[in-house]
Amino acid sequence: MVIYNPPVKDYEFLFNEVFDIIPTIQKLGYEEMDSDFLTMLMEGWADHTTNFWLPINQLGDKIGIRYEDGLIKSPKEFRDAYHKGVDSGWLSTSCKEEHGGMGVPVFFQAVTWAEFGTATNMALSVLPALTTGVYEVLTEHGDEHLVDYFAPEIGKATWAGTMCLTEPHAGTDLGMISTKAIPREDGSYSVSGTKIFITYGEHDITENIVHLVLAKTPDAPEGTKGISLFLVPKYLPSEWKTGTLEGISTSLRKEVNGISCSGSEEKMGLHASPTCVINFENSIGWRVGDLHNGMPLMFQMMNRERLATGMMGIGLAEIAYQNALSWVKDRRQGRDLNGIKDPNHKADNILVHPDVRRMLLEAKVNNEGCRALASWTGLLLDQIKSEDNKESERAQALLDLFTPIVKAHFTDLGCETVSTCMQVMGGAGYCSEYGVEQFYRDVRISKIWEGTNGIQALDLAGRKITQNMGKNLRYLLWPLTKFIEDNREIPEMEEFNKPLYQGVKGLQQLTLLMISQGQTNPHFLAAGATDYCRYFGNVLLAYMWAKISKTSLEKRGTPFYDAKISSSRFFFDRIFPETLALGAKIQSGHKSMMNYPEEMF
Amino acid sequence: MVIYNPPVKDYEFLFNEVFDIIPTIQKLGYEEMDSDFLTMLMEGWADHTTNFWLPINQLGDKIGIRYEDGLIKSPKEFRDAYHKGVDSGWLSTSCKEEHGGMGVPVFFQAVTWAEFGTATNMALSVLPALTTGVYEVLTEHGDEHLVDYFAPEIGKATWAGTMCLTEPHAGTDLGMISTKAIPREDGSYSVSGTKIFITYGEHDITENIVHLVLAKTPDAPEGTKGISLFLVPKYLPSEWKTGTLEGISTSLRKEVNGISCSGSEEKMGLHASPTCVINFENSIGWRVGDLHNGMPLMFQMMNRERLATGMMGIGLAEIAYQNALSWVKDRRQGRDLNGIKDPNHKADNILVHPDVRRMLLEAKVNNEGCRALASWTGLLLDQIKSEDNKESERAQALLDLFTPIVKAHFTDLGCETVSTCMQVMGGAGYCSEYGVEQFYRDVRISKIWEGTNGIQALDLAGRKITQNMGKNLRYLLWPLTKFIEDNREIPEMEEFNKPLYQGVKGLQQLTLLMISQGQTNPHFLAAGATDYCRYFGNVLLAYMWAKISKTSLEKRGTPFYDAKISSSRFFFDRIFPETLALGAKIQSGHKSMMNYPEEMF
Repeated sequence: MVIYNPPVKDYEFLFNEVFDIIPTIQKLGYEEMDSDFLTMLMEGWADHTTNFWLPINQLGDKIGIRYEDGLIKSPKEFRDAYHKGVDSGWLSTSCKEEHGGMGVPVFFQAVTWAEFGTATNMALSVLPALTTGVYEVLTEHGDEHLVDYFAPEIGKATWAGTMCLTEPHAGTDLGMISTKAIPREDGSYSVSGTKIFITYGEHDITENIVHLVLAKTPDAPEGTKGISLFLVPKYLPSEWKTGTLEGISTSLRKEVNGISCSGSEEKMGLHASPTCVINFENSIGWRVGDLHNGMPLMFQMMNRERLATGMMGIGLAEIAYQNALSWVKDRRQGRDLNGIKDPNHKADNILVHPDVRRMLLEAKVNNEGCRALASWTGLLLDQIKSEDNKESERAQALLDLFTPIVKAHFTDLGCETVSTCMQVMGGAGYCSEYGVEQFYRDVRISKIWEGTNGIQALDLAGRKITQNMGKNLRYLLWPLTKFIEDNREIPEMEEFNKPLYQGVKGLQQLTLLMISQGQTNPHFLAAGATDYCRYFGNVLLAYMWAKISKTSLEKRGTPFYDAKISSSRFFFDRIFPETLALGAKIQSGHKSMMNYPEEMF
Repeated sequence: MVIYNPPVKDYEFLFNEVFDIIPTIQKLGYEEMDSDFLTMLMEGWADHTTNFWLPINQLGDKIGIRYEDGLIKSPKEFRDAYHKGVDSGWLSTSCKEEHGGMGVPVFFQAVTWAEFGTATNMALSVLPALTTGVYEVLTEHGDEHLVDYFAPEIGKATWAGTMCLTEPHAGTDLGMISTKAIPREDGSYSVSGTKIFITYGEHDITENIVHLVLAKTPDAPEGTKGISLFLVPKYLPSEWKTGTLEGISTSLRKEVNGISCSGSEEKMGLHASPTCVINFENSIGWRVGDLHNGMPLMFQMMNRERLATGMMGIGLAEIAYQNALSWVKDRRQGRDLNGIKDPNHKADNILVHPDVRRMLLEAKVNNEGCRALASWTGLLLDQIKSEDNKESERAQALLDLFTPIVKAHFTDLGCETVSTCMQVMGGAGYCSEYGVEQFYRDVRISKIWEGTNGIQALDLAGRKITQNMGKNLRYLLWPLTKFIEDNREIPEMEEFNKPLYQGVKGLQQLTLLMISQGQTNPHFLAAGATDYCRYFGNVLLAYMWAKISKTSLEKRGTPFYDAKISSSRFFFDRIFPETLALGAKIQSGHKSMMNYPEEMF
């Protein structure tokens, strides 16, 4: 029996006490948002996911989707749960009210929604998450007739969305895609090509599926600069014949729009989430955004999905932790090394063993630290839309910087944490009954999709650091060094502030090294990127723990805040020291890998 | 299509050039063993496993075993492959010729056999591995009538063996087992109780299954000191009525010996290997070894299985590496950051990317380093039987020290490496077609069974280090410090010798810290045990790489030896620095975990 208690309390602490986000959110135009309403939202979604999503998660893993003659059949329970979500509005919280959404701030959908959703049912959660991503690109960049026609359906999640990028020979290197879009006289396009690894590319959950497809127009420039973005629905409107979609009703044709699904991958986890091969054959579509400007638009959606993927790391790590802890509480083996603790039983509870505590705290502390950084990052998603240019510029700079770290570091930690929780449970962790082995399989994809974590690291080290003349990094270092300075004279902050200071100093030195060496030899920079990204992630988490400690020190004496201070100590004692190793590895450079004789791999 | 090339060449290099084991093995009574014969053995087993085991590995995962009314059905292909192994002698290489075995040295079975076997079919390999373990305990400690009766069948592997330890409430803490063995008048015992997690506890592959069962006799002392070991066959001899088994034929009764299987766990991997709940109800068995001396005997088998489990880490990591590499060789994405490398193609092969090389080398270098340490450890298994007391004492001391490290560090690295190889392949790594996702699931159990890796670490730090007044460690440090001393003046050894020296110095300091602090507060020692074990593993692998470098430097100029030197550099640049983090974590002590408020987990 898998259990889950959504961490509403921890989010209340982060949103209200650590980041004090309500005033900021209200100034951004959400005047009705206060902390009571936020709690109500979180509790509502917590109830929905634990009542309707969690109970079918193991079933989804066991039954999975069924591919038959081009169609994908989802378990009936998944269709039902999805439509319960549509009816109650939970699948489109951040979409505008005019399009049938809840119209609440983006941070809620990007952080709390994503965590509870992926924890309780990762396979189901990706469908509305993708749909929200399509909604955002469409409403921001689509022509009026496209927005008017599609946004109300996508905004309510009655129609679902996908992103179609990868082709068999073109994954990371999208410049090589060969899907073609031929302009038609009426302004629409005829799209043809094959896309692979398309999550929910085909399914029977919604009435229509709206694909965002990367394709090249005839005579487009080589590489990524020749790519445009197209909206291609599975079913065309029955009333439509030519031209725009203005004034046309949402009733759909019976025959598909030249789109077929020729298979779904058998994979290690996420069995209830189809991963499709989708073929477009003279499918009618409309361009979204400017010609040859498809990559930046798709990247807007991709970046949102990268944050969503980071949240999968936290979500699955948290539910794994809770189930491991619940198992620990019932398990008695051996005795406290300092002497029998519980003479009424033949053995003590295994929480007496330091190594069991070490594992549980690695999980708990990583989850809580990541949740703090996620909360900050979520707020940035609302702040980039601020009418105050200074605020939006700063938010965009930090968001650019944090996105690859949230994606890569959270999913690396997520996979490690689920493994640690499995380890806590011993043989039971490996058995299907207890659920953790499913989390272990499901969470593993998060390190791969939306750009592998190696690609995230290259994005950080090779692009985000130097972008805008280094402004992204400066926007972080200003408040960070000020925080360190402000706390330098506070004795009880020293144990947190000092290692944070060391970490920031180390990060600055490594950044300089990466940039200066990278100028003459880009291999140096690329060789260190993954370790640099992890180092950076550690420093951000150190900042989070120092901030949490600051807030909690003022309220010492109640278990909640005392535990936060203890968690912070554990972080600096047992997690943060990995920066020592990472720094040394980065400094060793690229030679030991690039000089390796190629024929001897 | 999963590929595999058994690393025979690497073993030849290790056995013949790095460790020069033939003279030692010949002196131990295997006069006919020379390097040609050893190669022939390795190639024979390589052929057998790649021809008969590898082709059914994915099938075994997909079909799995079937539990029905107390019986376990294995896939027919598994039964056939097993019997091909019996017929050709490959399942009992280390058993004595008089019992139908090949009679070759133990190191072959423990190292090379184990690696190729687990790589090609981990689920099948555990059956003969367990059987060999039962054979060893039986022949060394069993009464003559038991040996005469069972050893020829177990030695040929026509009958299989199991180890029955765990009970629902007693896993790590075996002192709490409640299985009972009541003495019968004829010297046999009546065994009753329930055991769980029994690998191949029931199956249809062999005619009989011989269980080694831990149980307590009436009025036995509390805890582990009251445990005895019993041999309990699934089927009793049809001719037997009472007393010993002397002179009785191997024809078996039709009815089972009070043994039933009430279920098999559904689990994440190893689907073709049953994990059974086994009930004994007045089952007839015979005691093996002295009364109340069951634990040391079971530990003899357990220690062999711990080494075998460590080899699973290497085996699965090696086959994952080979398949990731094969995928890499066909994959083109992006361009070399130093400029286009292959203008004839639209993209360069991904081996041009430093991060891809980093991942592949982490896999390759860890595999080769572990294989070296495994080779040394395997030799110790033969040396402990030496008639030269000095040699056997030294070998036993080193074996005691290495066993927890081989088990924990190799399986930790194995799981990490398989994950890294999956990462190299991106989305393909997550799909079933390519095989690596099965390795990812299968290898994960290796960190759990035969004592979790946390237990291994406690065994190392809490027992093996201080055992025999610290003699185990001294037997390692003598040759190790001599090696460092001998190479101090050799300039081209400096890059390997110097970090090795630092590592050994660090290990000595940490050992002193653990022991001194541990005396007053055992929590300190237990809190650092896992990191200490990993630190120790790193130092042993550093020793291996320094030794390999020494051998290879003399033969520089051919790709094989040049690659070894490059691998060694990669090890010291990119893997060994993790000791910096581990040392800092150990020194931080136990307080951050033990002071954590219990109610706040």
